[in-house]
Amino acid sequence: MPQSFRCGCGRTGGLAAVPGDVRVRLDLGYDGTDFAGWAVQPGLRTVAGVLTAALETLLRTPGERLGLVVAGRTDAGVHATGQAAHVDVPAAAWAALPGRSDLPPDAALLRRLAGLLPPDVRVHGAAAAPAGFDARFSALRRHYAYRVCDDPGGVPPLRRRDVLGHRPPGAGRLDAGLLTAASAGLLGAHDFAAYCRPREGATTVRTLLEYSWSRQADGLLVARVVAEAFCHSMVRALVGGALAVGTGRREPAWLAAVAATGQRDPAVPVVAPHGLVLEQVGYPPDAELAARAAQARAVRTLSPQ
Amino acid sequence: MPQSFRCGCGRTGGLAAVPGDVRVRLDLGYDGTDFAGWAVQPGLRTVAGVLTAALETLLRTPGERLGLVVAGRTDAGVHATGQAAHVDVPAAAWAALPGRSDLPPDAALLRRLAGLLPPDVRVHGAAAAPAGFDARFSALRRHYAYRVCDDPGGVPPLRRRDVLGHRPPGAGRLDAGLLTAASAGLLGAHDFAAYCRPREGATTVRTLLEYSWSRQADGLLVARVVAEAFCHSMVRALVGGALAVGTGRREPAWLAAVAATGQRDPAVPVVAPHGLVLEQVGYPPDAELAARAAQARAVRTLSPQ
Repeated sequence: MPQSFRCGCGRTGGLAAVPGDVRVRLDLGYDGTDFAGWAVQPGLRTVAGVLTAALETLLRTPGERLGLVVAGRTDAGVHATGQAAHVDVPAAAWAALPGRSDLPPDAALLRRLAGLLPPDVRVHGAAAAPAGFDARFSALRRHYAYRVCDDPGGVPPLRRRDVLGHRPPGAGRLDAGLLTAASAGLLGAHDFAAYCRPREGATTVRTLLEYSWSRQADGLLVARVVAEAFCHSMVRALVGGALAVGTGRREPAWLAAVAATGQRDPAVPVVAPHGLVLEQVGYPPDAELAARAAQARAVRTLSPQ
Repeated sequence: MPQSFRCGCGRTGGLAAVPGDVRVRLDLGYDGTDFAGWAVQPGLRTVAGVLTAALETLLRTPGERLGLVVAGRTDAGVHATGQAAHVDVPAAAWAALPGRSDLPPDAALLRRLAGLLPPDVRVHGAAAAPAGFDARFSALRRHYAYRVCDDPGGVPPLRRRDVLGHRPPGAGRLDAGLLTAASAGLLGAHDFAAYCRPREGATTVRTLLEYSWSRQADGLLVARVVAEAFCHSMVRALVGGALAVGTGRREPAWLAAVAATGQRDPAVPVVAPHGLVLEQVGYPPDAELAARAAQARAVRTLSPQ
């Protein structure tokens, strides 16, 4: 059976697991600060590289054979708290995981990964996946959050790794209501070429399911951005555009007007990666996983995330 | 008028400001990871040292003259989100703060400190203090939080600087209800010598106003510990004792039984500093600040925090 196309991070959108393999769903988080993003790149420290190396050690199986596939291929500096991935583990390697412990294989994998991974990557869930599960193509939605601090004193020190400092001119604060109203013009299906780094042969039409701003109890502003899938650097451009409105440099209607041009607009700033966190990946009920994967694979094989 | 005793961090418990000075309250937070604690120590990077250096630059006044006084002198590695301090600024230096801007002195100080301080210390409030305010002696209560993660996968990467990883043996989790019930035996006035690093001439009698455990929505366990004042390393020993109960190594009644001995007990573990955050300092209404300071100064001049 032919594989779909490959990239440096292993099989992206691999088809069904090899018969006899156990497809294992991994739920994980990472601090993106010291990673050159998700995807394996020669000579660079990447999340997929570090995770694959740990899995190779534990499962005594080459990483290429395991075929790590991820739901959202985050860029350098972007964090995750709710990333999802899968690997296809040879049945014998899976059965051997407990060693001399009385743990089941999934609990043994979780515990041994905790001991082997560096503290900036943590796998908090590991389990045999339901039939038809594909971390990338079964996913219905990616949920991102972007956090901003507009306090004149600056970003709270314990949050400086995942919060952007952004002060409006003067003594003003950003207005979450204004930002949400301006962002609402982008909801629904649009060509987001204006907010994307283009990639040859890939469509830039996306359906934005949520884009809202709120002020948290701790004073931080958080943008919540949800879509089935995103183009490259799209969330950071959406946030950059909204902040230009929030600081009064642009009118609220500008966001939708830029989208309507259908062309990458250099006036839309792409904000720094460290405020961005992939918080959740949504999947359908188990019975619909396979059909969802087949549908998404047909439509989006070339989409980057 | 005589000063009360001095230490390396400037006047601790200084009396009323020099006439003509402006006593300025500073509200601040810091990531304690890269600091050797609050108090100035020769050759070490400390919060008081870094803050004093910035204030000397901005106010063109020697740090000793400014007399930085803090509410809670945190140990190495301990963080703060709601620390309070004061300095006594010569009136001329205060008036000169706006420079050529049209900002009032307090807003000018806040903005200029934001530009001058390193990102691991942030002053988020600066204002002329009400009459009678003393950051240390006017304080009624110090509120600490200690956060623990018992997830078998380990501490979420973005929280690893302020959360302790602590797994019970086996696959169990810590029980916040059990921890709170066990901790309740320590509430009220006791001699906490068993939970303190002793200091000559200082009483170890303290009144514990709150000591409760809860599980946050994000899955972390948080201990909230509130008292008028604490002895040295007391919060970390209280948490260490409770975790020994939580993991089943000790019976719930052990916490109060140890306290009753009145002697430092090496069986009480002092947990790592990085889970601890000074979150809030409580002060009385403005009209009661001076009386409160006079009362506390009389009772507690030698207490360390």
